[in-house]
Amino acid sequence: MEIIRSTSEMQSRCLALREAGKRIAFVPTMGWLHEGHLSLLREGRRRGDVLVLSIFVNPTQFGENEDFDSYPRDLDRDAALAESVGVDLIFAPEAADMYPRGYRTFVDVTGPMTEVLCGASRPGHFRGVTTVVTKLFTIVQPHVALFGQKDFQQLAVIRRMTGDLNLPVEVVGMPIVRETDGLAMSSRNVYLTDDQRRQALALSRSLDLARGLVAAGERDSARIITEVRSLIEAEPETRIDYVNICHQDSLQEQPEVDADSVLLLAVFVGQTRLIDNGHLMATGRDS
Amino acid sequence: MEIIRSTSEMQSRCLALREAGKRIAFVPTMGWLHEGHLSLLREGRRRGDVLVLSIFVNPTQFGENEDFDSYPRDLDRDAALAESVGVDLIFAPEAADMYPRGYRTFVDVTGPMTEVLCGASRPGHFRGVTTVVTKLFTIVQPHVALFGQKDFQQLAVIRRMTGDLNLPVEVVGMPIVRETDGLAMSSRNVYLTDDQRRQALALSRSLDLARGLVAAGERDSARIITEVRSLIEAEPETRIDYVNICHQDSLQEQPEVDADSVLLLAVFVGQTRLIDNGHLMATGRDS
Repeated sequence: MEIIRSTSEMQSRCLALREAGKRIAFVPTMGWLHEGHLSLLREGRRRGDVLVLSIFVNPTQFGENEDFDSYPRDLDRDAALAESVGVDLIFAPEAADMYPRGYRTFVDVTGPMTEVLCGASRPGHFRGVTTVVTKLFTIVQPHVALFGQKDFQQLAVIRRMTGDLNLPVEVVGMPIVRETDGLAMSSRNVYLTDDQRRQALALSRSLDLARGLVAAGERDSARIITEVRSLIEAEPETRIDYVNICHQDSLQEQPEVDADSVLLLAVFVGQTRLIDNGHLMATGRDS
Repeated sequence: MEIIRSTSEMQSRCLALREAGKRIAFVPTMGWLHEGHLSLLREGRRRGDVLVLSIFVNPTQFGENEDFDSYPRDLDRDAALAESVGVDLIFAPEAADMYPRGYRTFVDVTGPMTEVLCGASRPGHFRGVTTVVTKLFTIVQPHVALFGQKDFQQLAVIRRMTGDLNLPVEVVGMPIVRETDGLAMSSRNVYLTDDQRRQALALSRSLDLARGLVAAGERDSARIITEVRSLIEAEPETRIDYVNICHQDSLQEQPEVDADSVLLLAVFVGQTRLIDNGHLMATGRDS
């Protein structure tokens, strides 16, 4: 396994791999790898001849008052985990190489898809994501790229961008990986105190509750959302950012639940913003 | 020579060519080819194993009241000219294939470079250009792409975008090709009446005038611009959009002329908007 820092060296290597007929599988991350990332890497290992992991805490997708500075970083730890699942190349660029002086170009997915949910609470976030993913795709030249469904909206936005810009990359979404007690794996879980860690279960329990209501015949999104909000608000340190039931593709709110409905949650637990989501009817599309 | 309409077929072909080790040279155009385009194609023929020409009158770079509908189109005529200079593949997509229903993604070069000159008079124009060129680059997968220096600002913006997005394409700018009397070649020259055609010489004569003043020792941009404006306004059907002296890279206005100074002109002659430009000191960088 090799760690490459330079964008131009990474691109030359990847263009040469493509020309040599190698299939490149790519998992872009911000590092501080957990079992969710490792599940993407294992699937990438299966799908490509060469497995590339990028580790880049991308400044342009963080807002002014967000956790860019405190986001956990440990390249040695990540490299050991990456090697254990068969990564061939780690791409770990510097911000000054990704966004040199005079940098001016941004990729935007316009319209409701980026204006709702996380787009409403984190202005500019998706512009940062689509811009960095476009750049990573042009540098790494992957045939297939794997993303976690925990960032459900991000995955939808990246699919849209990839299709719209004709990027020749197969975008694969992979199921959320959870702790045994149900908490969705996230690099940000490291911020939680023991007590907050317990309260954070309100997110996955919300999914169970909503699915239970739907299984019992409830179809009214407003009533389900009210129940979910009560469950979350019962925990002392939680603050709801959003609780919505949306169509899986358009991300538009749905007043009535159907097979395409996804419950999407963003909740602060203390200062830590956590997200979770899941289909409300059994579809085989997620966990 | 082959004409390909489908974006996905074009991309598959070009990815296969790359994998076969072929070097792809690319000339993107809006068709109605003239000697300027042919000079790009001849240089492309020299620089690539496979020469690709795209012909696409891109709706997203035209404003509401511009000439999208009347822009001259004749694929048979263009195909004959293309074949005469050794084009291998013409890519002539439909707008509905380039921008299908639900299309939402745009590439923007932000900041002064796209806000001045043509960016000021044609809001959204460069966003349309950078978006379509990104898409054409991802579809055609060129090693080298050739653009005319007549669209001086466009070339600067495309260089910025290509660098910023790490697109692995060498962007080459080629000198303006002129009629024997000095008029810069343009597909839009076809709109001119005989009398307007004569008045349109005010643009190239402006360059001669400005260069003459600089050769005689004048360095004050304001005085040069005043002289140029008088020359153009002496023609009855002209209306100046802009006359500026700018730095060749930043496109920022320069109060004093130096070796990096370019005179940039946009002038309506009747209803037809023409542009022209050139360095004011001999640099060997353009005609």
